Amino acid sequence: MILRPATRAELPSVLALLADEDRVVDPASVPVTEAYERAFADIEADPRNEMLVLVDGGLVLGCLQATYIPGLGKGGAERALIEAVRIRADRRGGGLGRELMERAVARAKGRGCALVQLTSNKQRTEAHRFYARLGFARSHDGFKLVL
Amino acid sequence: MILRPATRAELPSVLALLADEDRVVDPASVPVTEAYERAFADIEADPRNEMLVLVDGGLVLGCLQATYIPGLGKGGAERALIEAVRIRADRRGGGLGRELMERAVARAKGRGCALVQLTSNKQRTEAHRFYARLGFARSHDGFKLVL
Repeated sequence: MILRPATRAELPSVLALLADEDRVVDPASVPVTEAYERAFADIEADPRNEMLVLVDGGLVLGCLQATYIPGLGKGGAERALIEAVRIRADRRGGGLGRELMERAVARAKGRGCALVQLTSNKQRTEAHRFYARLGFARSHDGFKLVL
Repeated sequence: MILRPATRAELPSVLALLADEDRVVDPASVPVTEAYERAFADIEADPRNEMLVLVDGGLVLGCLQATYIPGLGKGGAERALIEAVRIRADRRGGGLGRELMERAVARAKGRGCALVQLTSNKQRTEAHRFYARLGFARSHDGFKLVL
Protein backbone atom coordinates (compact mmCIF):
# COMPACT_ATOMS: atom_id res chain seq x y z
CA MET A 1 0.00 0.00 0.00
CA ILE A 2 1.41 3.38 -0.92
CA LEU A 3 0.48 7.05 -0.64
CA ARG A 4 1.46 9.14 -3.65
CA PRO A 5 0.12 11.94 -5.89
CA ALA A 6 -2.73 10.74 -8.11
CA THR A 7 -2.05 10.38 -11.81
CA ARG A 8 -4.31 11.87 -14.48
CA ALA A 9 -5.55 8.32 -15.22
CA GLU A 10 -6.78 8.09 -11.61
CA LEU A 11 -8.86 11.29 -11.80
CA PRO A 12 -12.14 9.34 -12.38
CA SER A 13 -11.35 7.18 -9.32
CA VAL A 14 -10.71 10.28 -7.21
CA LEU A 15 -13.92 11.97 -8.42
CA ALA A 16 -15.78 8.71 -7.63
CA LEU A 17 -14.37 8.78 -4.07
CA LEU A 18 -15.42 12.42 -3.64
CA ALA A 19 -18.95 11.55 -4.87
CA ASP A 20 -19.03 8.48 -2.58
CA GLU A 21 -21.10 9.15 0.54
CA ASP A 22 -22.26 5.73 1.73
CA ARG A 23 -21.74 3.44 -1.21
CA VAL A 24 -19.00 2.85 -3.77
CA VAL A 25 -19.39 4.91 -6.95
CA ASP A 26 -18.24 3.43 -10.26
CA PRO A 27 -15.49 5.67 -11.69
CA ALA A 28 -16.83 4.99 -15.20
CA SER A 29 -20.14 6.63 -14.17
CA VAL A 30 -18.57 9.93 -13.08
CA PRO A 31 -18.51 12.72 -15.65
CA VAL A 32 -14.96 14.11 -15.97
CA THR A 33 -15.78 17.66 -17.00
CA GLU A 34 -13.29 20.11 -18.51
CA ALA A 35 -13.46 22.11 -15.26
CA TYR A 36 -12.36 19.03 -13.26
CA GLU A 37 -9.59 18.29 -15.75
CA ARG A 38 -8.37 21.88 -15.46
CA ALA A 39 -8.55 21.82 -11.64
CA PHE A 40 -6.63 18.54 -11.55
CA ALA A 41 -3.97 19.95 -13.90
CA ASP A 42 -3.73 23.03 -11.63
CA ILE A 43 -3.17 20.82 -8.57
CA GLU A 44 -0.58 18.69 -10.41
CA ALA A 45 1.35 21.76 -11.63
CA ASP A 46 1.35 23.51 -8.25
CA PRO A 47 4.34 22.64 -6.02
CA ARG A 48 2.22 23.46 -2.95
CA ASN A 49 -0.77 21.26 -3.79
CA GLU A 50 -1.08 17.48 -3.98
CA MET A 51 -4.05 15.19 -4.56
CA LEU A 52 -2.75 12.15 -2.68
CA VAL A 53 -4.14 8.66 -3.16
CA LEU A 54 -3.76 5.56 -1.01
CA VAL A 55 -3.30 2.74 -3.53
CA ASP A 56 -3.17 -1.02 -3.07
CA GLY A 57 -2.60 -3.31 -6.06
CA GLY A 58 -3.71 -0.60 -8.51
CA LEU A 59 -6.93 0.10 -6.59
CA VAL A 60 -7.48 3.62 -5.20
CA LEU A 61 -8.67 3.05 -1.61
CA GLY A 62 -8.62 6.62 -0.37
CA CYS A 63 -7.61 10.19 -1.12
CA LEU A 64 -6.97 13.58 0.36
CA GLN A 65 -5.75 16.92 -0.89
CA ALA A 66 -2.80 18.55 0.85
CA THR A 67 -2.00 22.25 0.45
CA TYR A 68 1.31 23.50 1.84
CA ILE A 69 0.96 27.13 2.88
CA PRO A 70 3.92 29.46 3.37
CA GLY A 71 3.33 31.93 6.20
CA LEU A 72 4.71 34.43 8.67
CA GLY A 73 3.61 32.54 11.79
CA LYS A 74 5.35 29.44 13.20
CA GLY A 75 8.82 30.97 12.68
CA GLY A 76 8.25 31.14 8.94
CA ALA A 77 7.51 27.41 8.50
CA GLU A 78 4.86 26.09 6.12
CA ARG A 79 1.59 24.67 7.44
CA ALA A 80 -0.30 21.85 5.73
CA LEU A 81 -4.02 22.10 5.09
CA ILE A 82 -5.83 18.82 4.48
CA GLU A 83 -9.13 18.67 2.55
CA ALA A 84 -11.27 16.10 0.76
CA VAL A 85 -10.41 13.11 2.96
CA ARG A 86 -12.15 9.98 1.70
CA ILE A 87 -11.94 6.19 2.09
CA ARG A 88 -13.90 3.89 -0.27
CA ALA A 89 -17.27 3.06 1.32
CA ASP A 90 -16.63 -0.72 1.17
CA ARG A 91 -13.22 -0.45 2.87
CA ARG A 92 -14.06 1.68 5.90
CA GLY A 93 -13.59 0.62 9.51
CA GLY A 94 -10.37 -1.31 8.91
CA GLY A 95 -7.82 1.34 9.81
CA LEU A 96 -7.29 2.71 6.30
CA GLY A 97 -8.32 6.21 7.37
CA ARG A 98 -5.61 6.20 10.03
CA GLU A 99 -3.12 4.84 7.47
CA LEU A 100 -4.01 7.62 5.01
CA MET A 101 -3.82 10.39 7.59
CA GLU A 102 -0.66 9.19 9.31
CA ARG A 103 1.17 8.95 5.99
CA ALA A 104 -0.03 12.42 4.94
CA VAL A 105 1.06 13.88 8.29
CA ALA A 106 4.49 12.22 7.96
CA ARG A 107 4.78 13.63 4.44
CA ALA A 108 4.00 17.17 5.72
CA LYS A 109 6.51 16.74 8.54
CA GLY A 110 9.17 15.51 6.10
CA ARG A 111 8.61 18.65 4.09
CA GLY A 112 9.22 20.82 7.15
CA CYS A 113 5.64 21.82 7.98
CA ALA A 114 5.11 23.03 11.56
CA LEU A 115 1.39 22.27 11.67
CA VAL A 116 -1.33 20.24 9.98
CA GLN A 117 -4.83 21.68 9.97
CA LEU A 118 -8.22 20.64 8.66
CA THR A 119 -11.89 21.32 9.21
CA SER A 120 -14.73 18.86 9.58
CA ASN A 121 -18.47 19.55 9.41
CA LYS A 122 -19.91 19.95 12.95
CA GLN A 123 -22.41 17.16 12.25
CA ARG A 124 -19.63 14.60 11.56
CA THR A 125 -19.00 13.69 15.21
CA GLU A 126 -17.54 10.29 14.30
CA ALA A 127 -14.90 12.00 12.14
CA HIS A 128 -14.15 14.34 15.08
CA ARG A 129 -13.37 11.38 17.36
CA PHE A 130 -11.17 9.95 14.58
CA TYR A 131 -9.10 13.17 14.30
CA ALA A 132 -8.87 13.43 18.10
CA ARG A 133 -7.47 9.86 18.25
CA LEU A 134 -4.83 10.95 15.71
CA GLY A 135 -3.75 13.70 18.12
CA PHE A 136 -5.52 16.67 16.53
CA ALA A 137 -6.87 19.36 18.88
CA ARG A 138 -10.38 20.65 18.13
CA SER A 139 -9.33 24.19 19.01
CA HIS A 140 -11.06 26.26 16.33
CA ASP A 141 -14.40 26.93 14.70
CA GLY A 142 -14.51 26.75 10.92
CA PHE A 143 -16.39 29.42 8.97
CA LYS A 144 -17.48 29.22 5.32
CA LEU A 145 -18.93 31.84 3.02
CA VAL A 146 -20.36 30.60 -0.29
CA LEU A 147 -19.78 33.19 -3.04
CA MET B 1 -7.67 53.35 1.80
CA ILE B 2 -6.60 50.44 -0.36
CA LEU B 3 -6.14 46.68 -0.06
CA ARG B 4 -3.13 45.31 -1.94
CA PRO B 5 -0.29 42.79 -1.58
CA ALA B 6 2.30 43.95 0.97
CA THR B 7 5.67 45.08 -0.35
CA ARG B 8 8.95 43.77 1.07
CA ALA B 9 9.43 47.17 2.75
CA GLU B 10 6.18 46.56 4.67
CA LEU B 11 7.27 43.18 6.06
CA PRO B 12 8.25 44.68 9.47
CA SER B 13 4.82 46.36 9.69
CA VAL B 14 3.09 43.07 8.91
CA LEU B 15 5.18 41.17 11.48
CA ALA B 16 4.36 43.91 14.02
CA LEU B 17 0.63 43.42 13.31
CA LEU B 18 0.97 39.66 13.75
CA ALA B 19 2.78 40.21 17.09
CA ASP B 20 0.16 42.77 18.15
CA GLU B 21 -2.31 41.27 20.63
CA ASP B 22 -3.71 44.21 22.57
CA ARG B 23 -1.30 47.05 21.92
CA VAL B 24 0.49 48.48 18.89
CA VAL B 25 3.93 46.98 18.29
CA ASP B 26 6.68 49.19 16.83
CA PRO B 27 7.77 47.63 13.48
CA ALA B 28 11.36 48.73 14.25
CA SER B 29 11.33 46.48 17.34
CA VAL B 30 10.40 43.31 15.43
CA PRO B 31 13.28 41.05 14.39
CA VAL B 32 13.01 40.28 10.66
CA THR B 33 14.71 36.88 10.62
CA GLU B 34 15.97 35.15 7.50
CA ALA B 35 13.18 32.59 7.92
CA TYR B 36 10.55 35.36 7.79
CA GLU B 37 12.24 36.95 4.78
CA ARG B 38 12.22 33.59 3.00
CA ALA B 39 8.57 32.94 3.92
CA PHE B 40 7.59 36.41 2.67
CA ALA B 41 9.47 35.84 -0.59
CA ASP B 42 7.69 32.47 -0.95
CA ILE B 43 4.29 34.15 -0.52
CA GLU B 44 5.21 36.93 -2.98
CA ALA B 45 6.40 34.46 -5.63
CA ASP B 46 3.38 32.14 -5.30
CA PRO B 47 0.47 33.04 -7.61
CA ARG B 48 -1.92 31.36 -5.12
CA ASN B 49 -0.79 33.22 -2.00
CA GLU B 50 -1.07 36.88 -1.06
CA MET B 51 -0.21 38.79 2.11
CA LEU B 52 -2.73 41.58 1.75
CA VAL B 53 -2.48 44.88 3.63
CA LEU B 54 -5.08 47.56 4.22
CA VAL B 55 -3.16 50.81 3.82
CA ASP B 56 -4.16 54.42 4.46
CA GLY B 57 -1.74 57.26 3.75
CA GLY B 58 1.25 54.92 3.86
CA LEU B 59 0.19 53.42 7.23
CA VAL B 60 -0.51 49.66 7.38
CA LEU B 61 -3.80 49.39 9.31
CA GLY B 62 -4.50 45.71 8.86
CA CYS B 63 -3.49 42.53 7.09
CA LEU B 64 -4.56 39.05 6.15
CA GLN B 65 -3.14 36.19 4.14
CA ALA B 66 -5.21 34.74 1.31
CA THR B 67 -4.47 31.33 -0.19
CA TYR B 68 -6.35 30.34 -3.35
CA ILE B 69 -6.76 26.57 -3.46
CA PRO B 70 -7.53 24.63 -6.64
CA GLY B 71 -9.77 21.64 -5.97
CA LEU B 72 -12.10 18.96 -7.29
CA GLY B 73 -15.13 20.11 -5.28
CA LYS B 74 -17.33 23.11 -6.15
CA GLY B 75 -17.36 22.21 -9.85
CA GLY B 76 -13.60 22.63 -10.05
CA ALA B 77 -13.55 26.25 -8.78
CA GLU B 78 -10.87 27.58 -6.43
CA ARG B 79 -11.66 28.23 -2.77
CA ALA B 80 -9.99 31.01 -0.76
CA LEU B 81 -8.54 30.34 2.68
CA ILE B 82 -8.02 33.40 4.88
CA GLU B 83 -5.49 33.39 7.73
CA ALA B 84 -3.65 35.88 9.93
CA VAL B 85 -6.39 38.53 10.03
CA ARG B 86 -5.24 41.56 12.04
CA ILE B 87 -6.22 45.20 12.60
CA ARG B 88 -3.86 47.59 14.46
CA ALA B 89 -4.79 47.62 18.14
CA ASP B 90 -5.32 51.41 18.19
CA ARG B 91 -7.66 51.36 15.19
CA ARG B 92 -10.09 48.61 16.17
CA GLY B 93 -13.84 49.10 16.62
CA GLY B 94 -14.24 51.53 13.72
CA GLY B 95 -15.26 49.15 10.96
CA LEU B 96 -11.79 48.53 9.53
CA GLY B 97 -12.09 44.77 10.10
CA ARG B 98 -15.25 44.70 7.99
CA GLU B 99 -13.52 46.85 5.36
CA LEU B 100 -10.55 44.46 5.25
CA MET B 101 -12.67 41.32 5.04
CA GLU B 102 -15.20 42.65 2.53
CA ARG B 103 -12.42 43.73 0.18
CA ALA B 104 -10.66 40.39 0.52
CA VAL B 105 -13.92 38.51 -0.16
CA ALA B 106 -14.58 40.70 -3.24
CA ARG B 107 -11.03 39.97 -4.43
CA ALA B 108 -11.60 36.21 -4.07
CA LYS B 109 -14.93 36.49 -5.89
CA GLY B 110 -13.34 38.51 -8.70
CA ARG B 111 -10.81 35.72 -9.09
CA GLY B 112 -13.58 33.16 -9.51
CA CYS B 113 -13.46 31.50 -6.07
CA ALA B 114 -16.63 29.60 -5.11
CA LEU B 115 -16.04 29.79 -1.35
CA VAL B 116 -14.11 31.68 1.32
CA GLN B 117 -13.14 29.77 4.45
CA LEU B 118 -11.29 30.52 7.67
CA THR B 119 -10.93 29.21 11.20
CA SER B 120 -11.02 31.15 14.46
CA ASN B 121 -9.96 29.95 17.89
CA LYS B 122 -12.99 28.72 19.88
CA GLN B 123 -12.19 31.21 22.67
CA ARG B 124 -12.51 34.22 20.33
CA THR B 125 -16.31 34.54 20.55
CA GLU B 126 -16.24 38.22 19.57
CA ALA B 127 -14.47 37.33 16.32
CA HIS B 128 -17.11 34.64 15.72
CA ARG B 129 -19.90 37.23 15.93
CA PHE B 130 -17.91 39.43 13.54
CA TYR B 131 -17.63 36.65 10.92
CA ALA B 132 -21.32 35.76 11.36
CA ARG B 133 -22.26 39.40 10.67
CA LEU B 134 -20.24 39.19 7.46
CA GLY B 135 -22.38 36.23 6.37
CA PHE B 136 -20.05 33.36 7.25
CA ALA B 137 -21.64 30.13 8.51
CA ARG B 138 -19.97 28.50 11.53
CA SER B 139 -20.53 25.05 10.06
CA HIS B 140 -17.26 23.28 10.84
CA ASP B 141 -14.87 22.43 13.64
CA GLY B 142 -11.22 23.26 13.07
CA PHE B 143 -8.55 20.73 14.04
CA LYS B 144 -4.81 21.42 14.43
CA LEU B 145 -1.90 19.07 14.94
CA VAL B 146 1.42 20.66 15.91
CA LEU B 147 4.33 18.74 14.37
